Amino acid sequence: MNKHPDYLLNKIAGPADLKKLNLEQMKQLASEIRTLIIEKDAVTGGHLGPDLGIVEMTIAYHYVFDAPEDKIIWDVSHQTYPHKMLTGRAQAWLDPEHYDDVSPYTDPNESPYDYYAIGHTSTSIALATGMAKARDLLGKHENIMALIGDGALTGGLAYEGLNNAAIEKHNLVVVVNDNQWSIDKNVGGLVTALDKLRATNGETATNPFIAMGFDYRYVADGNDLFEMIAAFKAIKDVDHPVLLHINTLKGKGYEPALKDEEKYHWVSAAELTGHQQPTTVPTANSVAISTIKEEINAGKKIMAIDAAIPGSFGLDELKLNFPEHYTDVGIAEQESVAFAAGFAKEGAVPVLFENASFLQRAFDQLSHDVAANDLPVVMLVGNNGITPQSKTHLGMFDQVLISNLPNWTYLAPTTLAEEKAMLKWALKQRQHPIAIKLPSKPVTEGNTPNSTDYIQIHYQVKSGKDVAIIALGDFYQLGKQVADQINATLVNPLSANILDEQTLDQLAQTHKTIVTLEDDLLDGGLGQKIASYLSKQKITVLNYGQNRIYTDQLPLETNYQANHPTATQIIADLQKLN
Amino acid sequence: MNKHPDYLLNKIAGPADLKKLNLEQMKQLASEIRTLIIEKDAVTGGHLGPDLGIVEMTIAYHYVFDAPEDKIIWDVSHQTYPHKMLTGRAQAWLDPEHYDDVSPYTDPNESPYDYYAIGHTSTSIALATGMAKARDLLGKHENIMALIGDGALTGGLAYEGLNNAAIEKHNLVVVVNDNQWSIDKNVGGLVTALDKLRATNGETATNPFIAMGFDYRYVADGNDLFEMIAAFKAIKDVDHPVLLHINTLKGKGYEPALKDEEKYHWVSAAELTGHQQPTTVPTANSVAISTIKEEINAGKKIMAIDAAIPGSFGLDELKLNFPEHYTDVGIAEQESVAFAAGFAKEGAVPVLFENASFLQRAFDQLSHDVAANDLPVVMLVGNNGITPQSKTHLGMFDQVLISNLPNWTYLAPTTLAEEKAMLKWALKQRQHPIAIKLPSKPVTEGNTPNSTDYIQIHYQVKSGKDVAIIALGDFYQLGKQVADQINATLVNPLSANILDEQTLDQLAQTHKTIVTLEDDLLDGGLGQKIASYLSKQKITVLNYGQNRIYTDQLPLETNYQANHPTATQIIADLQKLN
Repeated sequence: MNKHPDYLLNKIAGPADLKKLNLEQMKQLASEIRTLIIEKDAVTGGHLGPDLGIVEMTIAYHYVFDAPEDKIIWDVSHQTYPHKMLTGRAQAWLDPEHYDDVSPYTDPNESPYDYYAIGHTSTSIALATGMAKARDLLGKHENIMALIGDGALTGGLAYEGLNNAAIEKHNLVVVVNDNQWSIDKNVGGLVTALDKLRATNGETATNPFIAMGFDYRYVADGNDLFEMIAAFKAIKDVDHPVLLHINTLKGKGYEPALKDEEKYHWVSAAELTGHQQPTTVPTANSVAISTIKEEINAGKKIMAIDAAIPGSFGLDELKLNFPEHYTDVGIAEQESVAFAAGFAKEGAVPVLFENASFLQRAFDQLSHDVAANDLPVVMLVGNNGITPQSKTHLGMFDQVLISNLPNWTYLAPTTLAEEKAMLKWALKQRQHPIAIKLPSKPVTEGNTPNSTDYIQIHYQVKSGKDVAIIALGDFYQLGKQVADQINATLVNPLSANILDEQTLDQLAQTHKTIVTLEDDLLDGGLGQKIASYLSKQKITVLNYGQNRIYTDQLPLETNYQANHPTATQIIADLQKLN
Repeated sequence: MNKHPDYLLNKIAGPADLKKLNLEQMKQLASEIRTLIIEKDAVTGGHLGPDLGIVEMTIAYHYVFDAPEDKIIWDVSHQTYPHKMLTGRAQAWLDPEHYDDVSPYTDPNESPYDYYAIGHTSTSIALATGMAKARDLLGKHENIMALIGDGALTGGLAYEGLNNAAIEKHNLVVVVNDNQWSIDKNVGGLVTALDKLRATNGETATNPFIAMGFDYRYVADGNDLFEMIAAFKAIKDVDHPVLLHINTLKGKGYEPALKDEEKYHWVSAAELTGHQQPTTVPTANSVAISTIKEEINAGKKIMAIDAAIPGSFGLDELKLNFPEHYTDVGIAEQESVAFAAGFAKEGAVPVLFENASFLQRAFDQLSHDVAANDLPVVMLVGNNGITPQSKTHLGMFDQVLISNLPNWTYLAPTTLAEEKAMLKWALKQRQHPIAIKLPSKPVTEGNTPNSTDYIQIHYQVKSGKDVAIIALGDFYQLGKQVADQINATLVNPLSANILDEQTLDQLAQTHKTIVTLEDDLLDGGLGQKIASYLSKQKITVLNYGQNRIYTDQLPLETNYQANHPTATQIIADLQKLN
């Protein structure tokens, strides 16, 4: 049921209705939108600070421009709650029964006002430049705008975008939404440049955007609706590239978010309502952090490196207590991996903390800088495998990225104790790059393995009969369920990409069927490598993992129904073979 | 035999010897080095302009700094011929019998003065920053320098590097070698900024490097040895990040190279000696270009897009005759793919021309921007597969990059006529992203295929018996050789990643063995997908392709000996099965 039938927002079916309002009414709308963001986040969790900061800019945009003909690319699109409310989707905030109706990102399947599914940063300027070029070739004339947060501006593609946008011949606007934060506090030379621009009301001569050739404009208070409307009116239908720098306040209208911007970038319902319980149970993250702390205390010259996502791994503790051993390179995954390569080359020990989805941006560095130079970089990969995330945030390509490169060993622990042993070994060996696939599903604590040397991969085998289940990483427990029920052989393969050919040969000789289980995309994964290796022998192999399709916030249970990685389905599939 | 026993260079075994020379002697050395570059390139081919331009800078570096303790990262390392001559490797230019002794790139296996194998641009600042950070943590104090060409500066990672280098606390120098060219003429906003800096002798206030916080220095003539020595002396042992902008002349000392810098970036021996024959035989490139010209003339709104490598595809013809239909984004592969995504979204037809090796940088855009949004981008992938290149330039990861992503169809033509049909279809269909694996080995012209619709993949089968050979793309001719000799079934699978499951089932039922041939890495490739698909059935499958190792300028014949993709070896392998 609509909680706020009295809200003005109820009368806004789209931008056309917004255009009928006066300034006071639009300010009222801004206030309503803020209330609704906080109310819904308190129930469902969600992005908070970025959306609170961009309310006025969004209202002004839809007041001045004519969407969907005029186009805006949101970078990142997690700041589009106000945009969604103004483009026919307000019920998803007004009515709790409809809270799940919309995606937290832009989605062209959801609305003609959304142009792309975007979840990774820094892509907007390149996308907008491509659109502008096509518009010109097609003889069209609409306004095209990229809205990029200052955090997204640290990614290299944003700069490639600026470099090309600056020389366009026709209409193209880049709005830099400067709220002084990405997810963590921004870092780097760009911060220096933006700071100086803000301090001089946009008037310093040392302006990197003017240096590149942009027509530069500055709005000192991007949360002032009147100022934003005036700024947009001034650039509507311009015939050349404009860079509009707006100074906004992340978290505006919610006091706690102003005080701790990293914490309130994205909030769980429990955080927002104060019902969060502290956890003391060890996790894949806490084991990694505590192991690294031990090694630093023992004198190891370690650098923990991440790309603007310390919160995803609990890195704040290292950052606080071991600042010399922590580097955040900003949203710049290529930099993080190349930086680690340099750090390793000089003789110290880099440990990368990467989110599987964002790591996609660093494929060339994993290959050209690390693997081709065979440098002993250690990398922990989080949020990998089959996940119920939005299609722009899937972690299922981690094995595609890492497993198929020479020189990398991709280890996959089946317990927390094994994770610790693998990490300690990876830090100690100084020969090759080692990645560790952090369990993204719950695993047991387990016992310290007997062998803790992974320079050669020797599969760990618990003998059963007829069927051998090779169960990788956090799918080991699933393998165990199957093995227990049908008295099958259970194998921990330890690595997602190094085959123990001798054991595979033995397994093939002594079993009728081999089953591989991996929490990941099948293509480019372990199962296909094993199927290929054993294909010279006439043994049946069944590969379980995720088929090659994009899922979009698909619950794991539904996914598993389709892909069969459950004990019941695997056993049924095996029975069908007989 | 040493062609120049009288050269001063004969007395330079390393930088220590260089340090004993006076300015006039070093100028003599510069002249000798230039002569040797041109002499050797005229025999073996090689990079020309970049190396001619950087002679004085290199001499000055080794005169002032103390390599190998002090470290310089060359970006890109194809400009290191003078560096190699000064660090004990001059015989590889003086003596034609030793021309093949050194790699055209830096190589740590070759010399302690080389730190990385580097063949992709824009990585140096990140590598140097990582090294500087490790140096500090380890309590060391040497000078660390990244030398980056202005072309390499257009890649996003260069900017991520600058962003992080600018805030380092200790010694770190970035030299921008501004020769106004990458491979093709530089493009974009950065050019505007560098132009203005050069025009004002480095004194304009609109300085993007100062904006980021660098201590900026300018050398107006980077080919003046005295000036370069002075500039390096002034920054040796600095305790903070310095950006040294030097203005050099690409091709200096060779008149034709000054007049046509793109042509003389890299030269074949024949080009340099004037013995080049014009070719009129159609090639994979010429078929692609002529097809696109036909379609543009027929009114199709096509944009040919490349990342600074028009020469690799013969794109100059399009650039000249259809400038509205050609965009070069600079060395910025992420931009090229995201730009294409935007161009497709707006309703026009982008055609990407990508080198397989450099395409690695755009994996996230292939995935997040194109595939997750299922946009009808057309992409031609050149220099793919098993090649005799340096390990930093291998093209064998193209299938890893493309084949394992949802929504992409990766087509692999077996003849030039099929390439044309596939490209025409890709341009016409407006549903999904389509990539085409351009033949990198010679293929026949062939006849226009009967079916020219590839929305469904139906394998083309020529029936034989016992063995079915599935031969992808430019390995089809190899498949045909085998099939002809043993009367096997020959299959053209058309695509590197879409399986025709019905035909595979039929083949498995009617044959004893299935052989897959692909001109590529086995991991993540077609053969493993087929092996996995058929692994439920008890049929023998043999996958041929390249094993997961880096090769380094390995002749194809040697490679083939190891990996067995020759008719003789395949037939021998098949006989062993019986």
